[in-house]
Amino acid sequence: MSQTSHAADASTVHLPFIELTALLQRIFERHGTSPEVAQSLAFNCASAQRDAAHSHGVFRIPGYLSTLASGWVNGKAVPVVEDIASGFVGVDAGNGFAQPALAAARALLIDKARSAGIAVLAIRNSHHFAALWPDVEPFAREGLVALSVVNSMTCVVPHGAAKPVFGTNPIAFAAPCDGRDPIVFDMATSALAHGDVQIAAREGRDVPAGSGVDRLGQPTHDPEAILDGGALLPFGGHKGSALSMMVELLAAALTGGHFSFEFDWSGHPGAKTPWTGQLIIVIDPDKSRGAPFAQRSEMLVKQMEGAGLTRMAGDRRYKARARAEVEGIALRASELRELEGFL
Amino acid sequence: MSQTSHAADASTVHLPFIELTALLQRIFERHGTSPEVAQSLAFNCASAQRDAAHSHGVFRIPGYLSTLASGWVNGKAVPVVEDIASGFVGVDAGNGFAQPALAAARALLIDKARSAGIAVLAIRNSHHFAALWPDVEPFAREGLVALSVVNSMTCVVPHGAAKPVFGTNPIAFAAPCDGRDPIVFDMATSALAHGDVQIAAREGRDVPAGSGVDRLGQPTHDPEAILDGGALLPFGGHKGSALSMMVELLAAALTGGHFSFEFDWSGHPGAKTPWTGQLIIVIDPDKSRGAPFAQRSEMLVKQMEGAGLTRMAGDRRYKARARAEVEGIALRASELRELEGFL
Repeated sequence: MSQTSHAADASTVHLPFIELTALLQRIFERHGTSPEVAQSLAFNCASAQRDAAHSHGVFRIPGYLSTLASGWVNGKAVPVVEDIASGFVGVDAGNGFAQPALAAARALLIDKARSAGIAVLAIRNSHHFAALWPDVEPFAREGLVALSVVNSMTCVVPHGAAKPVFGTNPIAFAAPCDGRDPIVFDMATSALAHGDVQIAAREGRDVPAGSGVDRLGQPTHDPEAILDGGALLPFGGHKGSALSMMVELLAAALTGGHFSFEFDWSGHPGAKTPWTGQLIIVIDPDKSRGAPFAQRSEMLVKQMEGAGLTRMAGDRRYKARARAEVEGIALRASELRELEGFL
Repeated sequence: MSQTSHAADASTVHLPFIELTALLQRIFERHGTSPEVAQSLAFNCASAQRDAAHSHGVFRIPGYLSTLASGWVNGKAVPVVEDIASGFVGVDAGNGFAQPALAAARALLIDKARSAGIAVLAIRNSHHFAALWPDVEPFAREGLVALSVVNSMTCVVPHGAAKPVFGTNPIAFAAPCDGRDPIVFDMATSALAHGDVQIAAREGRDVPAGSGVDRLGQPTHDPEAILDGGALLPFGGHKGSALSMMVELLAAALTGGHFSFEFDWSGHPGAKTPWTGQLIIVIDPDKSRGAPFAQRSEMLVKQMEGAGLTRMAGDRRYKARARAEVEGIALRASELRELEGFL
């Protein structure tokens, strides 16, 4: 790479959220998705970029597009919502993306949660290639508590095993809190998220000890060695491994989706999106006989702050979001050029 | 301690499950619980001892008894079950133990889960001083998937904070699996369970690096330093810490129970049981549109075994249980004498 392009890479442009979303939507539509799917994915991806969650921001676009080009995913799938029981909603995502499936079932899920006190959404036959917090945060903004899990693709070695079985299998949680943004976390049950390994490889950085193994099963700091036939490790030893197993059971076995090790995309070069399932549990805390939930969660936050905590779960994203609302969303000039090249 | 009593300590006796349960039940009743509460606690405690889960076996009895003597807990509380919504059951445990509260609500919870597809049990005003897996395993034996969380007492420093806020806050999960015992895990979200620190202290063993801090907030290997004004750390850094926070929100804020930092037992010397809450979510996997859940979980287990895993979650307990069914439950002779002394 020349000096000139380095300098160009370093320059930053800022786009309003609505403009980045519109650009991404045009890109998705240009590459074979329906307008509804394009809108859902564009909103999700622009939200991650806005919140400086870069491993799920515009960094993901080439992966989405190569997947669409490969015929692995149906960009025009119409999700079929199934009203199964008073607390149970299913969706057949039709080999499409998970976000439009959630969007299609969301109103019914909320109705059931408010009526029954708890409800579950089981999405199957779906592809989730995005951050998970955008799926749960909106529930908390409506006063609900939400928990979601999604399995992905085999790249994590169960604690005590020799070969990978699990995906990075994130868990996301959101809860309302008086006087502030919702409490939201989204954690891979692997030591690192896959996107973070890819970014470390791109930037030539080492990954922390305990993150992964090479193709021979030996511990490594080299992200390239993890990506090239190696594998990740669960976070937190046997405990993180047990949680990752739970995610396989909830997101795949319980929904009717594939396990992370079950799908074969070898016939679709360029495919990057895991064809699995997603589970979302939504609880209405107003059913509790205790004090209002959001008051109680505010008390917990105050106690944590009193104990010296300076940043709550989700705060880094909210800070970036607030900055983006003033300055626009930061992109490298080269990233913007690359996006425009996809039109 | 004399040579003689060392030798006596080392000798092991074996009791049939029914006999240990009956002994513990008489002890609980002798120390002020109702027959119903005694039965529930005795069954739980004998189950842990049978499964070689020693930190929650007869080791706990002195703590139960000093708590009952202190007047901190109501050993004769009658739980009040509240049928709140088609998927939501509440229980006011009446400042009694959590296990009788679960027992009182269990049939209603299962009915709701089978009808709605998912149901939640919110127990408040309760004391949980036991292992959590006995609460979830029975649901899996009836073909249901169960997840439970319980908060406890302030002894864990949130990641990024300086002082403890959370309890050890375990998460337990159980799922049915064809051709074998259910998949069950029960993990403290602290690096170590409190009982394990107490046992390490009693046995004069160090605890692993990263388990806790001393009263000055410095990392320590010394279990005595953790117990004497120090604190535990969450497992897995910021991720375990986020999960522990989630447990506070679900087990306390959502149930109407106390946070781990909220109760003041200083007026009750000898009190050991945290006065908090417990949440249990039960899902009926037969509502899924996929293949039968227990077949699917069996496929996951086979894949994990194929990857080199030799022990599934729960297997250590099942192995000990099978041995106890043949040999009886192992107790040190000194432990049995101590128990008999409580009558």
